[in-house]
Amino acid sequence: MLAFLGGTGPEGRGLALRLALAGEQVIIGSRDAVRAVKAAQDLLQHAPGARIEGAANDDAAARAGVVFLTFPYEGQRLLLEQLREPLSGKVVVNVIAPMRFERGRGASAIQVEAGSAAQEAQELLPGSLVTAAFQNVSAEELQEPKTPVEGDVIVCSGHGEAKALAMDLVRKIPNLRPVDGGGLANAKYVEQITPLLVNINRIHKVHAGIRIVGL
Amino acid sequence: MLAFLGGTGPEGRGLALRLALAGEQVIIGSRDAVRAVKAAQDLLQHAPGARIEGAANDDAAARAGVVFLTFPYEGQRLLLEQLREPLSGKVVVNVIAPMRFERGRGASAIQVEAGSAAQEAQELLPGSLVTAAFQNVSAEELQEPKTPVEGDVIVCSGHGEAKALAMDLVRKIPNLRPVDGGGLANAKYVEQITPLLVNINRIHKVHAGIRIVGL
Repeated sequence: MLAFLGGTGPEGRGLALRLALAGEQVIIGSRDAVRAVKAAQDLLQHAPGARIEGAANDDAAARAGVVFLTFPYEGQRLLLEQLREPLSGKVVVNVIAPMRFERGRGASAIQVEAGSAAQEAQELLPGSLVTAAFQNVSAEELQEPKTPVEGDVIVCSGHGEAKALAMDLVRKIPNLRPVDGGGLANAKYVEQITPLLVNINRIHKVHAGIRIVGL
Repeated sequence: MLAFLGGTGPEGRGLALRLALAGEQVIIGSRDAVRAVKAAQDLLQHAPGARIEGAANDDAAARAGVVFLTFPYEGQRLLLEQLREPLSGKVVVNVIAPMRFERGRGASAIQVEAGSAAQEAQELLPGSLVTAAFQNVSAEELQEPKTPVEGDVIVCSGHGEAKALAMDLVRKIPNLRPVDGGGLANAKYVEQITPLLVNINRIHKVHAGIRIVGL
């Protein structure tokens, strides 16, 4: 089972929907269990017959084997400190790109002392297999299952099996391609592509993604 | 005329060669005029009849209308402080991606106080029209003119006409596509894609580039 902590947000909803449509059993997590159940019911309207549930974050984290972090960066430290125990031994897929928005300036990356949100998550969860992935995939496109999502997902991790598992999950979403991005130190660069794409989206009125060419 | 300061390095050679093949008049700059002339002669063997010269950096900067910065980041402050006067009023295309290499760790971005090499260059050259471009294009591929270079060049500048001029130069190289990347604040994210690509190259044994999809 795949859990999406903070999965009531657009990125979590979109990923949960796409992976549920691919046959995975998913659970939307939220601070508020009622909101999580509501989000799961909404998603089921786009994916009748799929296996989608909602629960409080801690319950979702405890029940799932693979846990996606799909909440804003600001909440990471507090939530991961609370969930260290249930997340121990599990694959944790960090989708977070630390960003802020300022009027007139657009999106900009938040500096993270550990280097990246993914490295900070690994520090906070020493017993988990943290893997960074999906940060650059448009939440808007993910939420429209009739539209194919184009682009590459760069997957970074120091844990080989966790990386392979995350790359297999990428392949379950039509048209997305996983690219081995090496260790977690490279997640910093991948996370910082997201504010660039957000700013390109504003200029060009699109939902942009990236692709690595020459592979 | 296009000048390439530090153009005896791989990125400068490659860009100068491609733009000379497209009909542009180019001048390779180096600290050492003799090395610059030698590099120009080497390039002419790949592009017989093209207009390629070599000169000392200050001479090249003074003679050209558009000046590319194609030297390692470490040399930027000293050189630009020396060339503030000849570069004034000109379009300066910053190709620099600040990087270091460490054994076992691969490439990593050097933190720049101004945010990016491009923003630092604009601070050092207040009278110039600094534009960031070409940081993600493989120097190896550029130097093999029989192989098409694939990918996008994200162009960032606060100066609209300079940006348009740089985007037109991108279009002169077959298969490369310019993408308007907004203002110079976004150059930071583009520069940091380069160490990521270098590390992906090592993993996959390729010369990778990037493409923005969804445009």
